[in-house]
Amino acid sequence: MAALPARQRFCCANFLMERHTIFDWSRKARTGIPEAVFAESKSDAQLRDIIQAHQERKVPLLVTRLSGDQIEALSDLPLNVDPLARTATLLKSAPPPQAPQIMVVTAGTSDLAVAREAANSAEFMGLRVRIIADVGVAGLWRLEKHLPDLARARLIVAVAGMEGALFPVVAGLVAAPVIAVPTSVGYGVAKDGSVALGSALGTCAPGVVCVNIDNGFGAAAAAAKILLAP
Amino acid sequence: MAALPARQRFCCANFLMERHTIFDWSRKARTGIPEAVFAESKSDAQLRDIIQAHQERKVPLLVTRLSGDQIEALSDLPLNVDPLARTATLLKSAPPPQAPQIMVVTAGTSDLAVAREAANSAEFMGLRVRIIADVGVAGLWRLEKHLPDLARARLIVAVAGMEGALFPVVAGLVAAPVIAVPTSVGYGVAKDGSVALGSALGTCAPGVVCVNIDNGFGAAAAAAKILLAP
Amino acid sequence: MAALPARQRFCCANFLMERHTIFDWSRKARTGIPEAVFAESKSDAQLRDIIQAHQERKVPLLVTRLSGDQIEALSDLPLNVDPLARTATLLKSAPPPQAPQIMVVTAGTSDLAVAREAANSAEFMGLRVRIIADVGVAGLWRLEKHLPDLARARLIVAVAGMEGALFPVVAGLVAAPVIAVPTSVGYGVAKDGSVALGSALGTCAPGVVCVNIDNGFGAAAAAAKILLAP
Amino acid sequence: MAALPARQRFCCANFLMERHTIFDWSRKARTGIPEAVFAESKSDAQLRDIIQAHQERKVPLLVTRLSGDQIEALSDLPLNVDPLARTATLLKSAPPPQAPQIMVVTAGTSDLAVAREAANSAEFMGLRVRIIADVGVAGLWRLEKHLPDLARARLIVAVAGMEGALFPVVAGLVAAPVIAVPTSVGYGVAKDGSVALGSALGTCAPGVVCVNIDNGFGAAAAAAKILLAP
Amino acid sequence: MAALPARQRFCCANFLMERHTIFDWSRKARTGIPEAVFAESKSDAQLRDIIQAHQERKVPLLVTRLSGDQIEALSDLPLNVDPLARTATLLKSAPPPQAPQIMVVTAGTSDLAVAREAANSAEFMGLRVRIIADVGVAGLWRLEKHLPDLARARLIVAVAGMEGALFPVVAGLVAAPVIAVPTSVGYGVAKDGSVALGSALGTCAPGVVCVNIDNGFGAAAAAAKILLAP
Amino acid sequence: MAALPARQRFCCANFLMERHTIFDWSRKARTGIPEAVFAESKSDAQLRDIIQAHQERKVPLLVTRLSGDQIEALSDLPLNVDPLARTATLLKSAPPPQAPQIMVVTAGTSDLAVAREAANSAEFMGLRVRIIADVGVAGLWRLEKHLPDLARARLIVAVAGMEGALFPVVAGLVAAPVIAVPTSVGYGVAKDGSVALGSALGTCAPGVVCVNIDNGFGAAAAAAKILLAP
Amino acid sequence: MAALPARQRFCCANFLMERHTIFDWSRKARTGIPEAVFAESKSDAQLRDIIQAHQERKVPLLVTRLSGDQIEALSDLPLNVDPLARTATLLKSAPPPQAPQIMVVTAGTSDLAVAREAANSAEFMGLRVRIIADVGVAGLWRLEKHLPDLARARLIVAVAGMEGALFPVVAGLVAAPVIAVPTSVGYGVAKDGSVALGSALGTCAPGVVCVNIDNGFGAAAAAAKILLAP
Amino acid sequence: MAALPARQRFCCANFLMERHTIFDWSRKARTGIPEAVFAESKSDAQLRDIIQAHQERKVPLLVTRLSGDQIEALSDLPLNVDPLARTATLLKSAPPPQAPQIMVVTAGTSDLAVAREAANSAEFMGLRVRIIADVGVAGLWRLEKHLPDLARARLIVAVAGMEGALFPVVAGLVAAPVIAVPTSVGYGVAKDGSVALGSALGTCAPGVVCVNIDNGFGAAAAAAKILLAP
Repeated sequence: MAALPARQRFCCANFLMERHTIFDWSRKARTGIPEAVFAESKSDAQLRDIIQAHQERKVPLLVTRLSGDQIEALSDLPLNVDPLARTATLLKSAPPPQAPQIMVVTAGTSDLAVAREAANSAEFMGLRVRIIADVGVAGLWRLEKHLPDLARARLIVAVAGMEGALFPVVAGLVAAPVIAVPTSVGYGVAKDGSVALGSALGTCAPGVVCVNIDNGFGAAAAAAKILLAP
Repeated sequence: MAALPARQRFCCANFLMERHTIFDWSRKARTGIPEAVFAESKSDAQLRDIIQAHQERKVPLLVTRLSGDQIEALSDLPLNVDPLARTATLLKSAPPPQAPQIMVVTAGTSDLAVAREAANSAEFMGLRVRIIADVGVAGLWRLEKHLPDLARARLIVAVAGMEGALFPVVAGLVAAPVIAVPTSVGYGVAKDGSVALGSALGTCAPGVVCVNIDNGFGAAAAAAKILLAP
Repeated sequence: MAALPARQRFCCANFLMERHTIFDWSRKARTGIPEAVFAESKSDAQLRDIIQAHQERKVPLLVTRLSGDQIEALSDLPLNVDPLARTATLLKSAPPPQAPQIMVVTAGTSDLAVAREAANSAEFMGLRVRIIADVGVAGLWRLEKHLPDLARARLIVAVAGMEGALFPVVAGLVAAPVIAVPTSVGYGVAKDGSVALGSALGTCAPGVVCVNIDNGFGAAAAAAKILLAP
Repeated sequence: MAALPARQRFCCANFLMERHTIFDWSRKARTGIPEAVFAESKSDAQLRDIIQAHQERKVPLLVTRLSGDQIEALSDLPLNVDPLARTATLLKSAPPPQAPQIMVVTAGTSDLAVAREAANSAEFMGLRVRIIADVGVAGLWRLEKHLPDLARARLIVAVAGMEGALFPVVAGLVAAPVIAVPTSVGYGVAKDGSVALGSALGTCAPGVVCVNIDNGFGAAAAAAKILLAP
Repeated sequence: MAALPARQRFCCANFLMERHTIFDWSRKARTGIPEAVFAESKSDAQLRDIIQAHQERKVPLLVTRLSGDQIEALSDLPLNVDPLARTATLLKSAPPPQAPQIMVVTAGTSDLAVAREAANSAEFMGLRVRIIADVGVAGLWRLEKHLPDLARARLIVAVAGMEGALFPVVAGLVAAPVIAVPTSVGYGVAKDGSVALGSALGTCAPGVVCVNIDNGFGAAAAAAKILLAP
Repeated sequence: MAALPARQRFCCANFLMERHTIFDWSRKARTGIPEAVFAESKSDAQLRDIIQAHQERKVPLLVTRLSGDQIEALSDLPLNVDPLARTATLLKSAPPPQAPQIMVVTAGTSDLAVAREAANSAEFMGLRVRIIADVGVAGLWRLEKHLPDLARARLIVAVAGMEGALFPVVAGLVAAPVIAVPTSVGYGVAKDGSVALGSALGTCAPGVVCVNIDNGFGAAAAAAKILLAP
Repeated sequence: MAALPARQRFCCANFLMERHTIFDWSRKARTGIPEAVFAESKSDAQLRDIIQAHQERKVPLLVTRLSGDQIEALSDLPLNVDPLARTATLLKSAPPPQAPQIMVVTAGTSDLAVAREAANSAEFMGLRVRIIADVGVAGLWRLEKHLPDLARARLIVAVAGMEGALFPVVAGLVAAPVIAVPTSVGYGVAKDGSVALGSALGTCAPGVVCVNIDNGFGAAAAAAKILLAP
Repeated sequence: MAALPARQRFCCANFLMERHTIFDWSRKARTGIPEAVFAESKSDAQLRDIIQAHQERKVPLLVTRLSGDQIEALSDLPLNVDPLARTATLLKSAPPPQAPQIMVVTAGTSDLAVAREAANSAEFMGLRVRIIADVGVAGLWRLEKHLPDLARARLIVAVAGMEGALFPVVAGLVAAPVIAVPTSVGYGVAKDGSVALGSALGTCAPGVVCVNIDNGFGAAAAAAKILLAP
């Protein structure tokens, strides 16, 4: 490991996602995905430093899990902020029109924040995204009219809290792989997302894989690795 | 409480379900539902005693949760045994043709044992039953062709293990109340039925109520109280 | 599924409960139950929009899980608000005198908020409701004087936190089905309602079915499906 | 601690319950309670050695949690065996007629094994015992006829599995303290006794204290410490 | 049950602890223990009403789980308030000198609040109390000097959070019964008191019984039932 | 949904995986993946019927989770059995040489059974597979020599029990997406695979997605949907 | 135990860590480690009293788990405060140059607070400390450059939240024992540190021992007992 | 990492513990600790192969977690077997007299199997061991007479199930570090060792570190790393 010409920093804690190469054999991975920062455990000053360093180097940056206070404290910086998704981007142009498209499907409006974190992260990594909101299985006909579109997707990110029935229902109807993002939306036994997580993992519907509760960014990262791998 | 002219023994532990009246105001409840016994904690001799006492009194009896060994040990008695459901009945005629009908819907063939316990119990209590098996949501089209029939049911008992997505899907499509019976079918996070139980309780689909894991008898008892109440 | 002449929107997340028909066979379900909205994940603006849209269309509406701040923010609107139950209704007349009546029974005064959510929701759906409060089993004689009334009920909604002993006690004494609503009232091992939920599910008393912790609305919806089904 | 003239060995693991004195001030505790052994983790040879050592010293002995195989392997020894309770005693005479009496109350027949362990242990420690079996709250009238007797008891050991509603119901009706013994009788959410334990701990009925699941011996030991303390 | 000449209201939710008699056989229990109210779920107005009603009737009253805000809001009333214990008493004289004495032992200073709730409640019910604070087992010599006193106690209430080792250590050293009160003091795996509760229930030390986490009042009620029973 | 020209039966309970099309828009999915059966809940006779039906129709079949007894009972049938993986295939030719290849990486030899279920399932669905066994992170140098090969993989299935550190370590070193399969290998806190599952979900390493514990088949199905989608 | 010439008070609740001797045989332990106080459950006045008492006696003191408010309230006292670590020391000189050195390794910047509590506590007890921050396994090359230094350490304290993969990775690469400190950094399944704890306990990497979640002080105390024992 | 001259295989899954060096900087670690194998997941043939390979190379070997059947199947090999500890060693001489000694302390006889696994493993790694059995805290005087010996130990391995009070009690009395090994001995809430584990982690007694439930080998490995590090 002596000669590490480049690094792939892609972690969530201090989270400088440089996706450069590791060793010689991964050189082709050096391009493309810009950096990301997980804001939750960071001070305003730390965030400002990271953002300005990227600004100076003209390196695009994604910030996730921003609080309302953090958004306000950074409001003088040239960030593209989505308050619902709690994300901000710096120096990011839109994905090229020929980029692969993913579908982000949500069960309820309460799941939209996590869905938008997934969508913004995926666009930041170079994927095109289409969101289909509010198609929970308590009213299957709302899902039905989108089935032709879902069938054309190469990958579906399904975002659901409560009982998470959206995951098996979508996976049973389409050919694309489904990345399930359980959300912490729910109360009583479904509080904190554990039932939705269990639904994503416990289903026998084929082709469902799962990320951590509320981890929209993680779903986007997996989608990017699946669809943008050289 | 001094004068208790009759008793309603309807419990699962030693389980003599006489459903007679309690106090004066419940007199109209005195008729109808025959007795039941939970076999799991009983010796062969105890079961034989209970069954023969009913035989002598010519009182119908339902036995649930019989093991294979218990079924064999009691094979000389005039019982109507369902080995898959692990139930046996004594002196029971069919429900009258005008009795209310319930639908028992199962997600997978593995859930059929619990579904048959529910069905046999419900018939024993005077309900007519129709079973629709193997309509899990991993393939929604299998459920679809039964929707007209489900729409005519007055009450649906839905039996599912794994992720239990059948409960919200059925409840979202029909007008009848749904009694969910989570089953212990599953492995990993879905082992022992906890995910299916969470799905039944955590859903926002309207009109779903729930009983304990694998408790087909309990669903039947609730259905009988709902549909046969005077 | 091509021709969906009407919809039954009855969900809790974005929660527009239109209970129209699905397919042809459910046409008779098209009438009756007005719409409902779950306020917990909604902004003041979103709630105001939904309420005013119903006001303009002269469509009755139920709002549940309102916070104190939300109630204040919407105080200029012509809503009928119950601050304890955290519910509000729009354009709702009383149930007709011939409507079926349910009994809502609570163990302690702390359970009254959830009981009132159940009662208000049930009235909104067309049921008449009688509340019997504070009959927890730590003093059974308080329950006893209500037994004749409970015996006349067609359906009982039992609301209890702590150890939830009310559920088996009531179910063992009356002929009516019991919908148990565990509440999050309690501390230590009984915190968040898990013991009360276990009591509702684990009892061998016949005819107890259960909904999620604190889900008074869900109990009312099930009661309406049971008693108002055509 | 230099001079330890006697020992109080009263533990369950290797479990030689000598209840002699510790230090000078506990001298009055030196008499009375004979020894006990927890059989579950012991070989036949170990048990035989312990029993024969007591036999030679003419010291009474209680053995708990004997398996059927252990009972058979020790059948040549002069033990007084209760196979249902899985206990055996050596050299034990009956409690004197003036000994305090406790009541042991069980919810179902399945709880009888644990109740008998409690009863046999309590008698071994010098208490008189009366068992009232099968008075679960699914049929409260069965409990009612025993209320006058329960009211005369100085201490009640209540033994229940499933949802454990017996604990608050009894405690709410009588003046005596109640030691709750949750049992592992139950299935689904009530499996392994956790719901019954939660009921014993989470109740607001006054005067309920609790021991570990299935720990009939522990309830007896506490009762003896309460009623036989000098 | 028709003629209920008196009532024993002793519950924690709405909590009017009148401990009057139930039926004829409990007549001698009619006197003595004054009333108590659990403040946690009550409004300032509700508390004020209850307290003033007792003041007018000259009936002693115990209030537990008062918040700092509630204490301030009721500061004009003639209550005897213990802010650390979060209790208040009305019209209560000291226990008579011949009353039985209990020992309340705490592991750490953080457990003192719960210990004082137990002590104040016990005194309110007529017991004399001595508190021995800060004798946790991380330094056993601190416990040692109190052993002679502990040996003279008729009943010990042990209050401990963290790993709860105080319960088996005390029970192994003294002859008196031990009522364990696990507290929610702790962090990490010991957060919310579950490890201390497990220690109280899982120990093989004889004579330990347990109440709910932080339930000092419950321990006092059990002690009163044990020591003051006629 | 009236005209369902074909079906995609791909479920695990009764598990006939036909992957035909659903609706018109999924027609291109009609080819390719043969059928599969989950053996765990099936009798010998049921399995024999299913296998012989496929044999007669000359349709390839995959059977998973076969017990040793089931393998013996079916030993006269022309199945290709892998006793370690507990799988059997019927009428299956090797994947074509141009098929995409996945890498299956295992932490320990105990994880090899699940890894082989994943590998056999993936080959059955048309993927080429290479297994790299026994590269757990307790000795990272064992993993290092395989890094160049891992870098060339288009998709990695990582199989690990115990603490599951393999998942973040591999994902942090390579560009390919990682499907984590936690296994039930472990004891104490790691029993039943819950820690390995938590590691797969809780990591901040990018591009890790997860399936249920021991679900090698599910990982293969997701891999096939990712790599073989048209 | 009669003659206790000195005490070793080293506990976390009221936490006066005097580490004097117990009995004669531990006399050599009488020197060295100064006192410590756990601030979390203490009032400003209590803390001020303890600190001033030490100041007057000229006894060094460590305070842990200080809140921001407590730090401000004590700002007039001559304390050496580390706001990130939430620790303060009084009258403490640096460890001597010949003191053993430990390495404190952290996975992410979010774990730095706990790492600094460990480091400050260890220095207070007489150990030299070197912190290596931000070497989480999502990018193993960051860890690699520190391996020569880690190899020279006599003891490593590893601090990690999320999935805790740092523990097995470090333990598998170095000869020194590893004390794992799981942190509560994480969300979803990894919330509150349970997955990191499971990783520390469930790993098969040799030489990993574990303390409670976020317990940096405990790791330092164990390190001091290991390296400074006479 | 290109040149790995030696390996440290010390893992539990396939578990060849060679403790050779890793990289240049760890050369001094190349000597000493022989190999070990975890038998639980291995076939008789696999074990025989591993043992014979070591026999031929004249390399000492430790085998842990042998079943009774495995011990019988390997009875022709020249192994030194301890059936209670379920360990076997090959070609192992005794530790030299100048080797550091550890004390292994057990709470009950049921914990002796795990204690012996720890002791045999530690001796195999070159430590001298003394076992002090059956000093559980239910009778502290049994522990007291061993305190002078415990005070002389350089390191104590404490082995306890049930409530695990031995861990804080020992750690509070001696200067040596304590490695806690919770065992799965217990029932009810203490089943599977979770309460003992919580006690080891949740205690505030200083210097307690912990390994996985029943992991006697892990405690020995940590002790060897602590005491034998160069």
